[in-house]
Amino acid sequence: MELYVGYIAAFLGTVCWLPQAWKAWASRDTSGLSLPSNLLFLLTVTLWFCYGLMVGDMPIIIANICAILIVISIVAAKLRYK
Amino acid sequence: MELYVGYIAAFLGTVCWLPQAWKAWASRDTSGLSLPSNLLFLLTVTLWFCYGLMVGDMPIIIANICAILIVISIVAAKLRYK
Repeated sequence: MELYVGYIAAFLGTVCWLPQAWKAWASRDTSGLSLPSNLLFLLTVTLWFCYGLMVGDMPIIIANICAILIVISIVAAKLRYK
Repeated sequence: MELYVGYIAAFLGTVCWLPQAWKAWASRDTSGLSLPSNLLFLLTVTLWFCYGLMVGDMPIIIANICAILIVISIVAAKLRYK
């Protein structure tokens, strides 16, 4: 049971930023986005990716590769349309 | 070594949204924030909190209580200043 909760949380934590990335690129309205927060979050998912590599946990590796790509696109939109 | 990386990632993942919460309330500029993303993220950290309770992991519980409070404040700012 707790494994399902963990997997759903890991999946949601990865895809939940897709609407934000989409909105940032579609609306070009990024003034309300915090660059420090998104850069720190990019560092966070990068560290989780490294952690996944270190402990050899494939779900953590895959989830955080996806998260890294999504967060990079949000940071890119913020830098492009600031 | 991997434990340190995991702890730093968990800590960063909690505090990284503080600048976003601060910016949202200070600037009242929340038009660029995605409500679906932030609601899904609130669901994510709530599920991680439940997972922490289920497996009895105190660092996960504490980190996600902090995250829940920070994300609620971002969602509140978004709803208040939309």
